[in-house]
Amino acid sequence: MNTLGNRLKITSFGESHGNGVGVVIDGFPAGFKVDLEAIQQQLDRRKPGQSAITTQRKETDTFQVQSGVFEQSTTGAPICLFIPNEDQNSKDYDHIKDAFRPSHADFTYQGKYGHRDYRGGGRSSARVTAGWVAAGAIAQQWLLQKGIEILAFVDQVGELKCTEMDETLLNLASIDSNPVRCPNEAMAAEMEELIREIRKSGDTVGGAVQARIVGVPVGLGEPLFGKLHAALGMAMLSINAVKGFEYGGGFDMASARGSMVNDHFEDVDGHIQTKTNFSGGIQGGISNGMPITFRVAFKPVATLMQPQDSINELGESVTIAPKGRHDPCVVPRAVPIVEALAALVMMDYYLLSGI
Amino acid sequence: MNTLGNRLKITSFGESHGNGVGVVIDGFPAGFKVDLEAIQQQLDRRKPGQSAITTQRKETDTFQVQSGVFEQSTTGAPICLFIPNEDQNSKDYDHIKDAFRPSHADFTYQGKYGHRDYRGGGRSSARVTAGWVAAGAIAQQWLLQKGIEILAFVDQVGELKCTEMDETLLNLASIDSNPVRCPNEAMAAEMEELIREIRKSGDTVGGAVQARIVGVPVGLGEPLFGKLHAALGMAMLSINAVKGFEYGGGFDMASARGSMVNDHFEDVDGHIQTKTNFSGGIQGGISNGMPITFRVAFKPVATLMQPQDSINELGESVTIAPKGRHDPCVVPRAVPIVEALAALVMMDYYLLSGI
Amino acid sequence: MNTLGNRLKITSFGESHGNGVGVVIDGFPAGFKVDLEAIQQQLDRRKPGQSAITTQRKETDTFQVQSGVFEQSTTGAPICLFIPNEDQNSKDYDHIKDAFRPSHADFTYQGKYGHRDYRGGGRSSARVTAGWVAAGAIAQQWLLQKGIEILAFVDQVGELKCTEMDETLLNLASIDSNPVRCPNEAMAAEMEELIREIRKSGDTVGGAVQARIVGVPVGLGEPLFGKLHAALGMAMLSINAVKGFEYGGGFDMASARGSMVNDHFEDVDGHIQTKTNFSGGIQGGISNGMPITFRVAFKPVATLMQPQDSINELGESVTIAPKGRHDPCVVPRAVPIVEALAALVMMDYYLLSGI
Amino acid sequence: MNTLGNRLKITSFGESHGNGVGVVIDGFPAGFKVDLEAIQQQLDRRKPGQSAITTQRKETDTFQVQSGVFEQSTTGAPICLFIPNEDQNSKDYDHIKDAFRPSHADFTYQGKYGHRDYRGGGRSSARVTAGWVAAGAIAQQWLLQKGIEILAFVDQVGELKCTEMDETLLNLASIDSNPVRCPNEAMAAEMEELIREIRKSGDTVGGAVQARIVGVPVGLGEPLFGKLHAALGMAMLSINAVKGFEYGGGFDMASARGSMVNDHFEDVDGHIQTKTNFSGGIQGGISNGMPITFRVAFKPVATLMQPQDSINELGESVTIAPKGRHDPCVVPRAVPIVEALAALVMMDYYLLSGI
Repeated sequence: MNTLGNRLKITSFGESHGNGVGVVIDGFPAGFKVDLEAIQQQLDRRKPGQSAITTQRKETDTFQVQSGVFEQSTTGAPICLFIPNEDQNSKDYDHIKDAFRPSHADFTYQGKYGHRDYRGGGRSSARVTAGWVAAGAIAQQWLLQKGIEILAFVDQVGELKCTEMDETLLNLASIDSNPVRCPNEAMAAEMEELIREIRKSGDTVGGAVQARIVGVPVGLGEPLFGKLHAALGMAMLSINAVKGFEYGGGFDMASARGSMVNDHFEDVDGHIQTKTNFSGGIQGGISNGMPITFRVAFKPVATLMQPQDSINELGESVTIAPKGRHDPCVVPRAVPIVEALAALVMMDYYLLSGI
Repeated sequence: MNTLGNRLKITSFGESHGNGVGVVIDGFPAGFKVDLEAIQQQLDRRKPGQSAITTQRKETDTFQVQSGVFEQSTTGAPICLFIPNEDQNSKDYDHIKDAFRPSHADFTYQGKYGHRDYRGGGRSSARVTAGWVAAGAIAQQWLLQKGIEILAFVDQVGELKCTEMDETLLNLASIDSNPVRCPNEAMAAEMEELIREIRKSGDTVGGAVQARIVGVPVGLGEPLFGKLHAALGMAMLSINAVKGFEYGGGFDMASARGSMVNDHFEDVDGHIQTKTNFSGGIQGGISNGMPITFRVAFKPVATLMQPQDSINELGESVTIAPKGRHDPCVVPRAVPIVEALAALVMMDYYLLSGI
Repeated sequence: MNTLGNRLKITSFGESHGNGVGVVIDGFPAGFKVDLEAIQQQLDRRKPGQSAITTQRKETDTFQVQSGVFEQSTTGAPICLFIPNEDQNSKDYDHIKDAFRPSHADFTYQGKYGHRDYRGGGRSSARVTAGWVAAGAIAQQWLLQKGIEILAFVDQVGELKCTEMDETLLNLASIDSNPVRCPNEAMAAEMEELIREIRKSGDTVGGAVQARIVGVPVGLGEPLFGKLHAALGMAMLSINAVKGFEYGGGFDMASARGSMVNDHFEDVDGHIQTKTNFSGGIQGGISNGMPITFRVAFKPVATLMQPQDSINELGESVTIAPKGRHDPCVVPRAVPIVEALAALVMMDYYLLSGI
Repeated sequence: MNTLGNRLKITSFGESHGNGVGVVIDGFPAGFKVDLEAIQQQLDRRKPGQSAITTQRKETDTFQVQSGVFEQSTTGAPICLFIPNEDQNSKDYDHIKDAFRPSHADFTYQGKYGHRDYRGGGRSSARVTAGWVAAGAIAQQWLLQKGIEILAFVDQVGELKCTEMDETLLNLASIDSNPVRCPNEAMAAEMEELIREIRKSGDTVGGAVQARIVGVPVGLGEPLFGKLHAALGMAMLSINAVKGFEYGGGFDMASARGSMVNDHFEDVDGHIQTKTNFSGGIQGGISNGMPITFRVAFKPVATLMQPQDSINELGESVTIAPKGRHDPCVVPRAVPIVEALAALVMMDYYLLSGI
């Protein structure tokens, strides 16, 4: 199952250490002028080696448009985007050829498929998300034309958590003003320091990404099994290392009283909105016009720069030596991935709504 | 979008205050002996009026098998289960005919469909989950034959949260030993008391349900966009009032270090397992044979037994008077719903795996 | 696989000799006023016992609306229609309990499912098409509002074939003026006579149904694997006893020259159309605004009123005695079925087109 | 809609005169050794310029494996095959930039998408079938391992029709012994002569392809809306220029009597089969173990090598001059396309069956 979406479908293919990764986008409306540079910008936000706190692996992640765009406009035919692999040091993985790395997909892929591509995870590698980001970038452009903007940012690295966020900072400039992609500068500095320390110690750390979608019309969402937040949640849970999804008031609402978290309607100059937004912009699975807000929890990267005990395919104890180049914390690079999948879901649901 | 699943598909239909609610199950293997009583038992765990802490509305929720079962065995043809509505006091809803209830789906359904069935929510009512529970009960029976057992229980009501749970209590008898469905008796008593108080005050309270699936073989899950936890998450987020989903270590992993939460493999008498289970039984989207664990957060019921301010379709201020019979806290009745959808997903993925 | 369609999905359930047959329609737009009588009229055109040349089995085929319609309008929720079975003489089938009837689905259902519902075919019975006709009747109403009309009629019974058809006869009154549903009166009389003779001899005969859809806008159809004629063909090939589908010039075009069958465009008062219509209203899989025309071939009914040799489940020779009440020729009753599925496909594609 | 299949899904992309055409195959089982040469052989049977009676356009149609194959075996990940375009003489199409070619998709694509890729049809070009053939070739290899063989051949060119076919000639050697791909040598010679004459006259001619699938187990097919013949029909109707599909006795059964065309079962040494095969190997939508037979009708190529009248986008009369290099008759090159789609459907249904 490598296809996501209903009206707008993306089919993902490719693996780390093969020819490349790519995506076929089906259902994109004809006649849309594509901004190729904007796609590359999003890919650059995801690519390895972009800052001192990401992996030092180098990939330019330059994409090719294989189909579906003619004279810079979409034709209505499937758009295939392909990103060739470059810096594939397969030798980095020889030492783990027979070992099951802890908390990786080695064991389960072996169990399911009877073999696995040991070179950097193969299909289970987060490298495949490069294709998603390229596809999502086109969807983001399309949504912007409809007045819908998606912004994601880091709101947690380890125990450092932004509990409140100044809304004026929720813009791309603030978010990208630091390598962590946390718009709160002071917090970002602390987070960056934490990531540096953790890397030095050969360890990794988790974090969380928050997303906010504004300009959404009333009526996106397809009850009962196509609720907008369920589609967003499913997409987010498809990202490597994600362990949880919450929207609006989220998990905190489990401890709340109805009288405190009901969102009351008000009519402001003929425009109906809610005074609070514990609903996170979605009620009964359908957008209500308020900002859509959700949070995604990422576990720490499983590959450590310290020796780890494990077993091999024969069940024998082995020690996995630290090798290769890896991220100490994925959330800074996860920001464009969250945006991409959110954009693909939102565009899909916009098309579904028939608005 | 009223269909869930890939190989095993359930299509939901019906609404509160219409003829009834039902479900068509497509893809159920032929030749399975159905235990009709066991279906009714699960429906009884969901039905209103079952205890002092649920709504006092009365429905027997007796189901009819309309198709797909011949001489008590499944035939491979679609199984239609239908549950007629009984205690539909539509007059209870006349007072809200034109009002948008806070944090309900009134406003969004009106916006999307240009009208709404004001009688108790219509299609957006949790009554539709009766059909899901009936369908899930058959899937639970089928899974049990394969050695897979699903148990859900309440682990949080408001601020009362079971942080640790004695594994020996994770059985149906302990869970159903009290009306809250929390297997920890002492905690259950506190929770019940809290719900009673909250009801007296005319308020409502949120909570959380935890699920645990044991006996799962290695290899269920379909990368990339059919990861097992993503399918479970999507199903859970389809349940009314759910605000969040996490699996394994969940949101806590955002603050963890890799060295603390990596699950190390061990070979125990030729059986490979992990020493810890922060992965929640799923790695790379595929089951690894360990128990699958996840948690679902529910918001407080939006309908309060106290007056609430709102506006009507004309944008005029109105006060919604407390009327009707409602749950002060949904999690006790949500337990069989969580089990049902989990069972439908697990059976679907079992069939998908081709094991 | 009991679901047909993309935006408008119908899920079929039920079997002959069970509780009844039904259908769930998902994706039907909200706010459409349903004409329940018109649904019954189409069911009456399909029901057994309607004339001297159909089976004498009696069913009133009265349908129930179980969901999705509130105050006579569609709500956007799934519409469940249910048609209880009535005249189910299961004893008629005791004599074939263990035998494989020639050219029926007995052998293949047994092979696939390990058992079969021997009472009149169970799920493989054409009785299930009653649900399709009910669903299609609503779609026909909806399409009429958009100016799209679907008419099917019999153009062949055995060797009697209408090679030319006066267009002025292509209306419901002419088609239903005789029990054969062939609008050419003289031909209809011959066909009726042929069917009577064949019935007398205990034999059955095949035939063909032609359909014509007018008022179709340009642009319905989804290349590459959702071509409009491919969707229509797939739907028609889903009808019991159908052996072939052709559209526009059909099989005759295999022997034609391009210079003779190319449809040349002309501009008639600003309206672009083609001078001929060998394309059958569809070019490149997309409607071109001309009438859509197709033909469907039906084999003779496999159940004969004469003894037939066969084998039973043990491989022993048996003779199947003629019993029960059956159609000597299915095409008169197939007319509303062809219309129904065509309507469901056309409405689905209209919704897909976003026009 | 550019995806075909259920368990085995192929997503097609690309267009004539772009970078190339390709396909992503999802759901292919892991661990299958792929014979890359056999893929190229099927592509060579489809490619232009292969004989004197096909278009003289030259493409080597060399394919690249972009993903999903590691150390020559399938990995379970999506397989992307890409075939770069080579001989794209876009100037050949300048003269028709604004004109609607008769019986092409120019007018409908313009109507649906608001523009069209005038260079050789763009997405509507039969060039896209190169990707299908590559995908189908892998499926054919996989099916052969299961004992299932698919053979297609030409049985009609214009009025020349093989009414009977010696079964001993139904092998690849006989079929490919002549450029027409009709295994009856004498008939093939006549057909070749006819095609040469027609080309000389600047005209084109239709034809038909017959397919025969042997070694099929009992039980493939998914009632009701996934009948095996309906899936095959839908796939065939997706091929450019196809106007009709029939299986088993086909359209001739419309004029038959039941007593003449019922297939009687017999037990031959414990193996149950039918004495005749009017059912075409499929009963009730499910394979019965007999050879599956079907026929596909192709219209004459719409592009003629003689001037044709038409209109342009402004509705003005234009004359389309003969230009470019085109096939006088498509059926010889359609043979591997029919095989490819049949193989994809059969493999999909094999996987669906769970056998």
